[in-house]
Amino acid sequence: MNDAIDFDRYDRIRPIRWTGQALELLDQRKLPFAVEYVSCADSDEVAAAIHALTVRGAPAIGIAAAWGAVLAARAVEAADGAQALAAIEPALQRLNAARPTAVNLAWALARMRRALDGAGADWREVLEREAQAIAEEDLAANRRMGALGAALIEPGRGVLTHCNTGSLATAGFGTALGVIRAGVAQGRIERVFAGETRPWLQGARLTVWELEQDGIAPTLIADSAASHLMKSGQVGWVIVGADRICANGDTANKIGTYQLAIAARHHGVKFMVVAPSSTVDMATASGELIEIEERDPAELFAVGGARTAAERVGAWNPVFDVTPHELINAIVTERGVIERPDAAAMREAFSAG
Amino acid sequence: MNDAIDFDRYDRIRPIRWTGQALELLDQRKLPFAVEYVSCADSDEVAAAIHALTVRGAPAIGIAAAWGAVLAARAVEAADGAQALAAIEPALQRLNAARPTAVNLAWALARMRRALDGAGADWREVLEREAQAIAEEDLAANRRMGALGAALIEPGRGVLTHCNTGSLATAGFGTALGVIRAGVAQGRIERVFAGETRPWLQGARLTVWELEQDGIAPTLIADSAASHLMKSGQVGWVIVGADRICANGDTANKIGTYQLAIAARHHGVKFMVVAPSSTVDMATASGELIEIEERDPAELFAVGGARTAAERVGAWNPVFDVTPHELINAIVTERGVIERPDAAAMREAFSAG
Repeated sequence: MNDAIDFDRYDRIRPIRWTGQALELLDQRKLPFAVEYVSCADSDEVAAAIHALTVRGAPAIGIAAAWGAVLAARAVEAADGAQALAAIEPALQRLNAARPTAVNLAWALARMRRALDGAGADWREVLEREAQAIAEEDLAANRRMGALGAALIEPGRGVLTHCNTGSLATAGFGTALGVIRAGVAQGRIERVFAGETRPWLQGARLTVWELEQDGIAPTLIADSAASHLMKSGQVGWVIVGADRICANGDTANKIGTYQLAIAARHHGVKFMVVAPSSTVDMATASGELIEIEERDPAELFAVGGARTAAERVGAWNPVFDVTPHELINAIVTERGVIERPDAAAMREAFSAG
Repeated sequence: MNDAIDFDRYDRIRPIRWTGQALELLDQRKLPFAVEYVSCADSDEVAAAIHALTVRGAPAIGIAAAWGAVLAARAVEAADGAQALAAIEPALQRLNAARPTAVNLAWALARMRRALDGAGADWREVLEREAQAIAEEDLAANRRMGALGAALIEPGRGVLTHCNTGSLATAGFGTALGVIRAGVAQGRIERVFAGETRPWLQGARLTVWELEQDGIAPTLIADSAASHLMKSGQVGWVIVGADRICANGDTANKIGTYQLAIAARHHGVKFMVVAPSSTVDMATASGELIEIEERDPAELFAVGGARTAAERVGAWNPVFDVTPHELINAIVTERGVIERPDAAAMREAFSAG
């Protein structure tokens, strides 16, 4: 085992590219069957792309929204940052409304507002530098989390992940998938299992694809096979990302995460949440207070062009759930590891940060 | 609430129809998008239909095979049953080989052989009556299980089911879905949730369709949403079928069943297994002794014609799992209800039956 990590070797995908004139987003609805970038020329196109899931993953959404603010600024004239901020505020609010659950979206836009508010005549450059900084800090945070999380993993077993938390969901390297990349690079992780993640199949379409790109051979399973897998003894950790982490450690993440946490505890498998500190929402006391996005039931009626159920059947399609902190062994952010998270441990780590 | 059950009102689908000349099978590969019966004029066409999954569900396969034997008999001349049996034995063996694992297939054919062996000159009528009896007994057993299982359900909440255990899988009414039909008929069940059941999507394609036909509006969910659903308090019972029930009550069933049982226990939701006594295997002491079938990983790479993952990705596709008896609140067969099943309770119910 070698604890040094060759970050570039295991991280070749970039979902968000800024050309200097437009924002290019790798169209995640078409992966893995087509690798195509969509170009957004203004902030409303970015908002639409966020809403349509062209770009997804909480950190990636935040970064895309930051570039959306840069594009919004191109459309206005202003003498300084405060004036510009007033002019683009409607556009920022449309960006903010594109997805309801991920806290990174609001966080990134708030950061863009603050940068703009203090800027002088060079406000356009300030805004662009801020977006660049958000992206670069995200990548650095992911690499740091990768090292911190991997250090928790005893060598010799497999891990299970859910949804996509990889390079595709971030500026690069990934959160939970960054820990997995680091663990594979260090020889700690023998095998990577990925759940399909119905209904949008981020695991089947995105996670196994991006791991393959980096030479890490994953094993895809049906979401329903996770408990049977855990019973077999092949996995030591479930490692997932987060869309929001509350003040007591309760964590909102992709639907199915909570089910994995229950099964992990039942089998003595450990459960790790990996997310940048921007995902932490100390203003929300606990998971019951999180609004859970429910999407169109039609997402359960088809896959690609193939129908999977009769139309007009009733369906319920919540796309996130909340894992209570009691079921989480460790929360990893770029600031460090919180083992057995609860309100006291979270306060110590994140208050007055 | 009215405990009388209008069985016919809630049970309109018949997957197997005997015309007197031919066997008509509802093509379950095409549901719910086309409702088409395939006509089988001889026993080899029945064997082919069983092999091709035109008809599925262990009880339905057994019934189809029994009618296949009737069709085989039409092709031979014989003075009595024993002579006829010798003549159709090759056809019976081809029927038996159509699916390797379904125990009901061998069971139904053995029953047809016994009936034929003792028959005289009226052996053709004996054979047809036996096939009719197998189908009628299956329907009667399902109705009996429906009443027994529904009586366990406290009125006022919903239930969750998995895979398809309904009219489509049996002579009619269904096993787990029969309990649900009975519970709806009695006003005990307010809402029926059905998991999609990846990878074959029996829940999405078959269960919600057949419930709709009977005027029971189901709610389809992703398999991963089950725990989030349970946490919401909307379901009081998970109700599933079984492929094999061991001597200690451990139950093999469709992949994902075990995960639902763990989640149910975590939330104080009760867990019911419903299957005819022919599913009980007192010769297998416990679930660890059951070999779990693993199917082609390619089943995880596509839905209908639409691909869901890149080809040549590694995948693991176990299609059954084992739910330990400790997680089961009740096993319902046509002989009665076994609450808190274990080896002693199973022995009492099924030994020297």
